Amino acid sequence: MNSILTLDRVYQAAHSLNGIIRETEIVPALNLKVGTPLYLKTENLQVTGSFKVRGSYFKISMLPEEEKAKGVIACSAGNHAQGVALAAKKNNTKATIFLPSTAPISKVEATRSYGAEIKLIDGVYDDAYEAAIKYQEETGGAFIHPFDDEDVIAGQGTIALELLREMPDLEAVIIPIGGGGLAAGISYVIKSLHPTCKVYGVQAVGADAMCQSLTGHCHCMTNAVRTFADGIAVKNPGEITFSLCNKYVDDIVTVSDDETATAILTLMEQQKLVTEGAGAVSVAAAMFNKVPVDGKKTCAILSGGNIDVSILSRVIHRGLLTSGRLTDLTIELVDKPGQLEQVAGIIAQEGANVVRVFHDPGGENTDINGCYLKISMETKNHQHHHQIQSALRKAGFTLTDNK
Amino acid sequence: MNSILTLDRVYQAAHSLNGIIRETEIVPALNLKVGTPLYLKTENLQVTGSFKVRGSYFKISMLPEEEKAKGVIACSAGNHAQGVALAAKKNNTKATIFLPSTAPISKVEATRSYGAEIKLIDGVYDDAYEAAIKYQEETGGAFIHPFDDEDVIAGQGTIALELLREMPDLEAVIIPIGGGGLAAGISYVIKSLHPTCKVYGVQAVGADAMCQSLTGHCHCMTNAVRTFADGIAVKNPGEITFSLCNKYVDDIVTVSDDETATAILTLMEQQKLVTEGAGAVSVAAAMFNKVPVDGKKTCAILSGGNIDVSILSRVIHRGLLTSGRLTDLTIELVDKPGQLEQVAGIIAQEGANVVRVFHDPGGENTDINGCYLKISMETKNHQHHHQIQSALRKAGFTLTDNK
Repeated sequence: MNSILTLDRVYQAAHSLNGIIRETEIVPALNLKVGTPLYLKTENLQVTGSFKVRGSYFKISMLPEEEKAKGVIACSAGNHAQGVALAAKKNNTKATIFLPSTAPISKVEATRSYGAEIKLIDGVYDDAYEAAIKYQEETGGAFIHPFDDEDVIAGQGTIALELLREMPDLEAVIIPIGGGGLAAGISYVIKSLHPTCKVYGVQAVGADAMCQSLTGHCHCMTNAVRTFADGIAVKNPGEITFSLCNKYVDDIVTVSDDETATAILTLMEQQKLVTEGAGAVSVAAAMFNKVPVDGKKTCAILSGGNIDVSILSRVIHRGLLTSGRLTDLTIELVDKPGQLEQVAGIIAQEGANVVRVFHDPGGENTDINGCYLKISMETKNHQHHHQIQSALRKAGFTLTDNK
Repeated sequence: MNSILTLDRVYQAAHSLNGIIRETEIVPALNLKVGTPLYLKTENLQVTGSFKVRGSYFKISMLPEEEKAKGVIACSAGNHAQGVALAAKKNNTKATIFLPSTAPISKVEATRSYGAEIKLIDGVYDDAYEAAIKYQEETGGAFIHPFDDEDVIAGQGTIALELLREMPDLEAVIIPIGGGGLAAGISYVIKSLHPTCKVYGVQAVGADAMCQSLTGHCHCMTNAVRTFADGIAVKNPGEITFSLCNKYVDDIVTVSDDETATAILTLMEQQKLVTEGAGAVSVAAAMFNKVPVDGKKTCAILSGGNIDVSILSRVIHRGLLTSGRLTDLTIELVDKPGQLEQVAGIIAQEGANVVRVFHDPGGENTDINGCYLKISMETKNHQHHHQIQSALRKAGFTLTDNK
């Protein structure tokens, strides 16, 4: 691969993005206990909610005028769609975005709000991609690749220029990797200007094609992806991006979806920042000691914040369960009056808040007069839950919970 | 009231806070459709998660050395507790914080993490306050008032210096009001340096003591407060703060808890920022046209982000319900095999996702063979929900939902 990526190109991208995008804040992770002075590059606060607009805008701005006049085309259900939509508008051209009809309504509406024409295609991503390519052949508009393009990569690389200007003594950077555009751009710039700084990439364990490629030093793809971090759920990394990451990324690691969910919740609670799965894997890698950054002045890239609130709601729910702030009780009752009142009284006295009650006559293992009472409560922590269990047992109730 | 608040004092506070607190970012509200160029002063990204640390730190730094040596005392279950705890630590003195034992564990732990000694007092806020005063009399430590103190007000006023330095052409500012410390400090500085800028205060409709006081131009308190915005749930505004707000605040309005919840959800979805109820009332006032800022360059103060995730979870849940992204169906079934399968099949075909099923044999109004099937689903919007209802009705099912 004969790479034409140069620092000149990245500086040109930075100049062209001036006034179009935000130079996002670098926020110290003051309350995150990760054993290292961690900083967060808040691309979740970028226009369109992710870094993607940088690459798309620069790419479109570099198109010859006659090509630009034909409009641009993209296929994406996520951040790339929103990036291209806004980038096209700012470049005074038209964007036509193809999405699978199963795309979350919130992302479709966000993309439309930037003025793009939306084509919803029945089926999955591959069907939408096919339709986009067909449309491209018919109209002659430029197809904007989400990552495997030198200009797109140069645009994403501008993040590193901002990092090094504000933190010239940066010792390590942690970058989410899907197709590899962000990591290719940032690692190229970091290693060109400040080679002692370590560059770490992070993937979801269920979407680790670039990880496999870099480990084997050979571009490869996976058959399937399985992660809720949809922004980095990529089966086939780019060839240009692979070649750059292979040269400039020091190491690449994976995090589980549970680790990512914990990072999202922690970023919300401690840092007051909303991130999507892809945006939080960098912090997950630091929190769960996947990368050797101890004591190093480190910056994690929060690449985006476009998370569907239904997903966010699930992440919070799981977090409440695992931290013991939402707990369940199952009580075996003899079916006689006053039992529910007594249980409710004990729970109230212990300071918990009942949020759901389910009364079940029970199955073959219960007494014919018996029933199960299932109660969901807001508790302070696991210890509080155990305290309530003890109080109920002391009052003579039989609990069927294991813990 | 003989006010000793001067600009000198505020500049002194700014000097003393240099290097202790963050000069928080002012972020453009790019995606909020509020008909005005709205900016957000992100004090939710402040150390301790709210602006309170500014006033506490400056107050403690101004104590005579012999008084400082005795430690400082505060009574609060919220942002003030965390602010005083960190401010004491940075001033090399000890903080003893009194909290009602019903305080959320997350806030207690956050306060303790800054090194404060925690005294949990059985009862409500007033009991904790009484214990704090008694302790103060015994130890001679300084009691740090959350708002009604010139130095505390001067500390909060430093926010206005940052605002005017970055936005010298600011035309309006919107400030959350509880006890009035934040509004007193900011309005004093704004009107002293840049008097053409309008200053609007916002309270929760269920905690509007300052609103009543300013409307009647006479300090008064309310008997009760009712809002989930605990950071501004104040019955008795300060006397110094009232006197300053009465002089410098142009108008004061109220927002409902539902409006505040919508603002919190919108800030999360559109701006990727987590705010607490008190922190979001300023944006709620702009979103729901409570303040005449149309076309004016306006900054809303996001005063804090310390929201309990259980509350956040409820805010999201309510938002999903009102936007039709989480909907319920109640279907009247004849109790025969295959019915559930058929219903599930129709819902799947329409692209909704079932999250909860509840099967109820029904009451006196149903056929003895009948039952109710209650289903909660993730849907795209209200229209999607209606589409599913139609499909079920077309297949011969009876729905008992009104809409």
